[in-house]
Amino acid sequence: MTKTHEGYFFEDYRVGQVVRHAVPRTVGAGERALYHALYPARHALYSSDSFAQACGLSAAPLDDLIAFHTVFGKTVPDISLNARANLGYAEGRWLAPVWPGDTLTASSEVIGLKQNSNAQTGVVWVRTTGRNQRDEAVLSYVRWVMVRKRNPEAAAPEPVVPELSDAVDPRDLVVPAGLDFGSYDFDLAGEPHRLGDYAVGETIDHVDGVTVEEAEHMMATRLWQNTAKVHFDATQREDGRRLIYGGHVISMARALSFNGLANAQMIVGLNGGAHASPCFAGDTIRAWSEVLDRAETGAPGVGAIRLRLVATKERGGGLRGADGKYLPHVLLDLDYWALMPI
Amino acid sequence: MTKTHEGYFFEDYRVGQVVRHAVPRTVGAGERALYHALYPARHALYSSDSFAQACGLSAAPLDDLIAFHTVFGKTVPDISLNARANLGYAEGRWLAPVWPGDTLTASSEVIGLKQNSNAQTGVVWVRTTGRNQRDEAVLSYVRWVMVRKRNPEAAAPEPVVPELSDAVDPRDLVVPAGLDFGSYDFDLAGEPHRLGDYAVGETIDHVDGVTVEEAEHMMATRLWQNTAKVHFDATQREDGRRLIYGGHVISMARALSFNGLANAQMIVGLNGGAHASPCFAGDTIRAWSEVLDRAETGAPGVGAIRLRLVATKERGGGLRGADGKYLPHVLLDLDYWALMPI
Amino acid sequence: MTKTHEGYFFEDYRVGQVVRHAVPRTVGAGERALYHALYPARHALYSSDSFAQACGLSAAPLDDLIAFHTVFGKTVPDISLNARANLGYAEGRWLAPVWPGDTLTASSEVIGLKQNSNAQTGVVWVRTTGRNQRDEAVLSYVRWVMVRKRNPEAAAPEPVVPELSDAVDPRDLVVPAGLDFGSYDFDLAGEPHRLGDYAVGETIDHVDGVTVEEAEHMMATRLWQNTAKVHFDATQREDGRRLIYGGHVISMARALSFNGLANAQMIVGLNGGAHASPCFAGDTIRAWSEVLDRAETGAPGVGAIRLRLVATKERGGGLRGADGKYLPHVLLDLDYWALMPI
Repeated sequence: MTKTHEGYFFEDYRVGQVVRHAVPRTVGAGERALYHALYPARHALYSSDSFAQACGLSAAPLDDLIAFHTVFGKTVPDISLNARANLGYAEGRWLAPVWPGDTLTASSEVIGLKQNSNAQTGVVWVRTTGRNQRDEAVLSYVRWVMVRKRNPEAAAPEPVVPELSDAVDPRDLVVPAGLDFGSYDFDLAGEPHRLGDYAVGETIDHVDGVTVEEAEHMMATRLWQNTAKVHFDATQREDGRRLIYGGHVISMARALSFNGLANAQMIVGLNGGAHASPCFAGDTIRAWSEVLDRAETGAPGVGAIRLRLVATKERGGGLRGADGKYLPHVLLDLDYWALMPI
Repeated sequence: MTKTHEGYFFEDYRVGQVVRHAVPRTVGAGERALYHALYPARHALYSSDSFAQACGLSAAPLDDLIAFHTVFGKTVPDISLNARANLGYAEGRWLAPVWPGDTLTASSEVIGLKQNSNAQTGVVWVRTTGRNQRDEAVLSYVRWVMVRKRNPEAAAPEPVVPELSDAVDPRDLVVPAGLDFGSYDFDLAGEPHRLGDYAVGETIDHVDGVTVEEAEHMMATRLWQNTAKVHFDATQREDGRRLIYGGHVISMARALSFNGLANAQMIVGLNGGAHASPCFAGDTIRAWSEVLDRAETGAPGVGAIRLRLVATKERGGGLRGADGKYLPHVLLDLDYWALMPI
Repeated sequence: MTKTHEGYFFEDYRVGQVVRHAVPRTVGAGERALYHALYPARHALYSSDSFAQACGLSAAPLDDLIAFHTVFGKTVPDISLNARANLGYAEGRWLAPVWPGDTLTASSEVIGLKQNSNAQTGVVWVRTTGRNQRDEAVLSYVRWVMVRKRNPEAAAPEPVVPELSDAVDPRDLVVPAGLDFGSYDFDLAGEPHRLGDYAVGETIDHVDGVTVEEAEHMMATRLWQNTAKVHFDATQREDGRRLIYGGHVISMARALSFNGLANAQMIVGLNGGAHASPCFAGDTIRAWSEVLDRAETGAPGVGAIRLRLVATKERGGGLRGADGKYLPHVLLDLDYWALMPI
């Protein structure tokens, strides 16, 4: 009997199946420090207990993307170990802050299955929920991936393609209990721009660039206990390069977006996202954002801004070519909601 | 008077001498996070407070090898600064968990001395004990190293070669107070295999590989305050390469062994070990294990498994050639006891 | 309206102006662990709660240079984003320990301005103060930088050149409340040398060297939220190299100085400093120190030692050539006060 885990293949999934992912994870001050060493993260609410307390929270929560990466990492052995591609995200919502000392677990429900016409692969849709040690949901999102079949001869399941929202309705965004931007300190936060200063359609070049290193992306990816071989083992690809975890690019771009979006404090919704091109060590990641929407929330002084965050590996704008495909220098196209003082 | 420490040479040691090592070290959540960023560590008992509590502990202890590396690091300036080779380990026992916030100190007793026939070097055996701030022993092990003589003319000491056990008797293994695997959650731990599922002689290929980087092994080695020059200074060797601390390979291999040994939760005994070949940045570390023995402990639901853990820098099995020497791709051959649910 | 911050130019500063720097930062056990992973730091007072408690403190404070780098990092967007060179430091004093959990903010007062004769740049002198969440000053120092003019045609300000002390008067050094070296444990600290063992004029070669890596200096520099582009973006220089933050060299050299100065426990004064040459990945940093002065403090058993700390990228001594300029292998020349048992 083999003891090692080979991961699941397309024909192993059933719609309605719930997978309880392994290895709960306690996260804390150490993970936060590493996050700040690996990314140029500066959003004040996550950088400073004092600033967070002045905004009505008990302390600085852990960075919103620490929750995302940790929950995502838990799903890899069960969902994407045999994946060919990570196809998309939808309906992501941050439901409660993660505090230092919290322990996160994750589970996923299979909500869609569709075999590809080549019969070699199929698409699996899962809704993943992360929970803390009090069994409170902290994050929920849909992801779909292309998974290999173990046996191309295996019968195709009845196709089920879930209907997914194009964007999270701002009324469904969850503002952390107590959050109050009524006496928000724009000086300490780093920029004077409030929600009303951003126009829909406005684009912001975040100016800075970071050249990425093997040691960094591997440390990040291990920290989230993400075990996908291609990130760590240089012998996995013929060209001897290690593919950088897409979430590393998300965090790098989000951190770079501080310059121009310092007040887009908390990510609360993930509307969609595409990892347009692979990223490798030596690439210099840059980022720009486009304002897609603005909304109110019920919380005092707290608005929501919908942003497209684009990471590129070269200077210059442009997202898609005349053929509708992403331009070759685009690494990431992410659509999210963040909370911002009004 | 020179202020810097040149380390001790073979003729400086006396059997019975006790060296109290310098620089006590408080370890905590930061060291744990770094450990998890540097190695793909996933054993649930060290990853999650909740999981550890469900196993009867007050919280997740720090990874067993954090204790080992920290104590080992303390000994380097006094024992191995002028060492030519780290020859072996024996009679290692973890005696109490190390908790975040504990402060570790270490001392070593010289238990053996034997000059080599070339009169240039000699072998020094020490029994090292790590203690916490309550003066409780947390770890004890024997190590022997080949140390240079300052002066080849110095008289050889009376040879004293200690008698060492081939393996720690399982009755001498210390199970942490309170540990109870009676309601062990195999799903959360990541694998269904219990002690009874492992047969003596069975081998497990841990499948994954990690290509190692200079920045990573230096960060790890510094974290344990290990000061051996060859790990950090590229001018120390003629080939301009930095030798990777053998403990980095131990931790990498142990973390890789999760895949197939997810329930070998806590290392409690170190029977022996050899660093068969040097490891350098760019090498891709892989690992396989062989089940050597199984034993009971008095604790509820807790058994012990004796494992050989072999790290290699190429795929494929094999340990020793026809000449009895380690095959050139073997980096590490480690023999240890771990606690596992029965 | 552009949302991104381009930094200030020479003509934007006025003598007497106070800049309140953005993004307060909570520092703790995670930052300490990273500091110890990035530098071979071993001074016992910062390594061990127990040792610090035996010296009259409540616990180990965060490393003195964590306070410096964090405060320095806060000033970068406002002071040195458009700087051509970091020219000097003076009158630096550590005023209170920084404890895990403290939140640091920083502000700077412009105390001098002098346009250079080329009218392209000018020198800006600032006195920067770091404060904790109780509004207690923890660090104060003067720094001067050469800053570009946005518009070379802009009128030159009246030159104001502040008078700065050559060295902090030892009577002005602040010894942390409670510090008592009366029962100092030299064994645990790692060396037997007390203040009286050091002679003014004595030099100490710290022996060890560390070859530095891109991933390490970027992680360090990000950890202090220092955003200067040249440290991170390989496209900023024509030679494709990333310039290493000068503070990385300071911390590396200070950590290396343990070997010979293990009892120079706490940095309390910064008399001056020059980053003589740029440092790049692949350089092997070495260090030597010269004893410049000794002084008493009012605290029990606590003396002060004034040291020149020189970092080089090659073996061998020498500081300045016949022309009075720094020799090309000199990276850093730092003049500081540290507390040492008498």
